[in-house]
Amino acid sequence: MTTAVRAYAAHSPTSPLGLFKLDRRSPRADDVVIEILYCGVCHSDLHSVRNDWGNATYPLVPGHEIVGRVVEVGAEVTRFKTGDRVGVGCLVDSCRQCSACGKGWEQYCESGRVDTYNSVDRLDGRPTQGGYSEKIIVSDAFVLKLPDKLDLAGTAPLLCAGITTYSPLRHWKVGPGSKVAVVGLGGLGHMALKLARAMGAEVTLFTRSPGKEADARRLGAHRVVLSTDETQLDGVAGRFDLIIDTVPYVHDLNPYLPTLATGGTLVLVGYLGPLDPALNSAPLVLGRKAVAGSLIGGIAETQEMLDFCGLHGITSDTETIAIQDINEAYERLLRSDVKYRFVIDMASLKQEATV
Amino acid sequence: MTTAVRAYAAHSPTSPLGLFKLDRRSPRADDVVIEILYCGVCHSDLHSVRNDWGNATYPLVPGHEIVGRVVEVGAEVTRFKTGDRVGVGCLVDSCRQCSACGKGWEQYCESGRVDTYNSVDRLDGRPTQGGYSEKIIVSDAFVLKLPDKLDLAGTAPLLCAGITTYSPLRHWKVGPGSKVAVVGLGGLGHMALKLARAMGAEVTLFTRSPGKEADARRLGAHRVVLSTDETQLDGVAGRFDLIIDTVPYVHDLNPYLPTLATGGTLVLVGYLGPLDPALNSAPLVLGRKAVAGSLIGGIAETQEMLDFCGLHGITSDTETIAIQDINEAYERLLRSDVKYRFVIDMASLKQEATV
Repeated sequence: MTTAVRAYAAHSPTSPLGLFKLDRRSPRADDVVIEILYCGVCHSDLHSVRNDWGNATYPLVPGHEIVGRVVEVGAEVTRFKTGDRVGVGCLVDSCRQCSACGKGWEQYCESGRVDTYNSVDRLDGRPTQGGYSEKIIVSDAFVLKLPDKLDLAGTAPLLCAGITTYSPLRHWKVGPGSKVAVVGLGGLGHMALKLARAMGAEVTLFTRSPGKEADARRLGAHRVVLSTDETQLDGVAGRFDLIIDTVPYVHDLNPYLPTLATGGTLVLVGYLGPLDPALNSAPLVLGRKAVAGSLIGGIAETQEMLDFCGLHGITSDTETIAIQDINEAYERLLRSDVKYRFVIDMASLKQEATV
Repeated sequence: MTTAVRAYAAHSPTSPLGLFKLDRRSPRADDVVIEILYCGVCHSDLHSVRNDWGNATYPLVPGHEIVGRVVEVGAEVTRFKTGDRVGVGCLVDSCRQCSACGKGWEQYCESGRVDTYNSVDRLDGRPTQGGYSEKIIVSDAFVLKLPDKLDLAGTAPLLCAGITTYSPLRHWKVGPGSKVAVVGLGGLGHMALKLARAMGAEVTLFTRSPGKEADARRLGAHRVVLSTDETQLDGVAGRFDLIIDTVPYVHDLNPYLPTLATGGTLVLVGYLGPLDPALNSAPLVLGRKAVAGSLIGGIAETQEMLDFCGLHGITSDTETIAIQDINEAYERLLRSDVKYRFVIDMASLKQEATV
C-alpha cells in the first residue's frame, strides 16, 4: 500500500523538472509522516538532477532542506505527535550499528548513509525521494525538532547549508578568539558567516566580488578580503585557524594556504573532485597545515545546530519561490543570483492537478 | 675572530662535495662548541646541495643530524659542560618571541626559523653551515642532551628522521589502540615504524617493494601492504587513524585516502611541491579526512623524542661511511640503496689535510 503525492521530479539530466506522481510508502511503526511546508534549494539538488556526480537515478525528486508539520505517526513513535513542527535534512537512515553511527556520525556510516533522495531505502529497496513533494515519510530517529520561534522558510536551509557549515566549525573547535575565514558567499557561505560570528569568532569573508562587502558585514563578517588582490591576501598571511571553503566547483586552493595560521585547516564543504590546479604541499609541510573535507553533520549535531540557531535567532536569508519556478531558479543558482537561498513554498504544489 | 675547521662542501648544484675550509664564529656567551663525532645523511642534504628547492647558497656544508661532545661553552651556558654528549638537529635558532616559538614550535617560527645549514645567522648575518664538519657552534637553547645508553652513530638520525616522524605521531595523538600506516621504508619510514610501535600503535607499512616484508616486521610493522595491489589496499579500507607519508618525491596520494578511517589524516613529511596527479577532494569530504604536512619538530619535543628513544632503546639502523664516500652515498641514496641511514663517522675527516 502506497500513497500517491504530488512532487516535482527530473526524468533525465537534461529535462526540466515537472509534476510527478510520487508513491510514498505506508508508514512503518517508527515512521513520522510529514506534510512539507517549505523546502530549500541546495546546489546538490542541481548537481544531482544533472547527474554531475554520475550516480543519478531517475525519476529523481530532489530536496533535503525540509520543514513541515507532522500529520501522522507510527505506533512506536513517542518523540513526535501530530501538529509538531519538524525538519528533515540530508539523511533519512543509516545502519545505526557501525562505529561511526555509534559516535553520532551517521553521515559517515560505514555501511553507507541513506540520503534523503537518490538513495535506496534499507528495508524495501525502493529509491528515496526528496522534499520537492507534498509529504515525506521518515523514521523518527532521523526527524529533527524545530525551534519554536524561528521563521519556517528561513529554517529550511539550516537542514543542509546550516549543518554543513556548523559541523566543521564545531569539529575544529571554533569559539571566542578563533579566527575563521569563509570562502564564497552563497547559501553555505552566508550561513558560515552567521554561525561563526554567533560562536564568538573573528570572521573574514574571502570573495572575488568587490560588491559583497556591505552584505558580508551585515551577515557577520568583521572583514572582507578580495581573493583576487594579492596585497589583501598578504595582509591576512598566517591569520586563520580555520577556513571554511564553500565553493561548489573546482578552484585554486593555493592562494588561501598562506593565510592559514600554523596548524590551521582549510576544510572543503562544497566541492568534490580533483584539486586543479595542483595543491602544493610545501605550505602544508612548512606550517603543519591541513586541507580537509567535511560532509553535512550527524543527527544529534543537526539537532544541536537547530537549538543553537533558535537560541541565537539565526535563520537563512531566503527568497521564496513557487515550485513552478524551480527550473528558472536553477538557472539563477548557476549565476549565483540568489540572496542567499531559494526556498520553495510547498503551498504552490497544491495548485497542480491531483495526481 | 673565527676558527677554521675542516668540512665537506658543495660549490654548485652539479659539483661533487669536497674538502672545504670552513670558518666557524668565535663562541658567544650562550654558545656551545661541539666536536662532531657522527653526522647522519638526510635526503634534504641531497635536495639542498643539488638546489632542488631553488634556494641553495654556495659553498654549502650540509648535515643536520649531528652528535658529538662538548669541547667548550660560553660564559652564560649552564646546561652543558665540556665532555657532555650532545646533539644538534635541523634548527640552530629562531626568533624566540613569536607565538609559535612561545608554544615550543620553533620549526614554525613566524619570523623564520634558522636552519642548521643553508640559512642565515640572526646576529651576524653569515650563512649557517652544517654537520659535515669537525665542529659546530650553536646557542645552548638549540643543543639537545643525548640519552646515555644509546649508540652514538645510531642516535644521529634521530635528530631529523626521528623527530620528523615523532612529531606528527604525537601531534595526532598516537597511542595504544591507534592504527598507523607508514608510506615508504627509508630513513624516515623505518623510524616511523619503530616509534609508532613503541607508542603502542598497530603499525602497517605501505610499500611498492614486495621484498621489504621481513625487514618491515623486524622494524615494528604488524602488517605490510603492497600499495600496487588493489586487493591488498581494499583489505585495509577505512582502517588508519594516521598515515605518515615519508616519500620524498612526487607521488599519487589518492590510493591511500580510502584506507583512512573517518576523521583520519594523511601527513606528508617528505615531499614539498605540487600534488600530481591531482588530489581528489571527494574522499576528504565524504569521510572528514585530511591531508596535512608536518616539519621536523620543536626543540622541547626533540628532547622529549630523544628521552623516549633512550627509554625504549630506539636508534636508527645505520650504515657508517667515511666522509670521503659521501658522493657515492648520495648516488646510492637516490637508488634507495641504504638500510636505513648513512651516518658519517667524522673521524674520517681528520685524515684530510689541515685547512
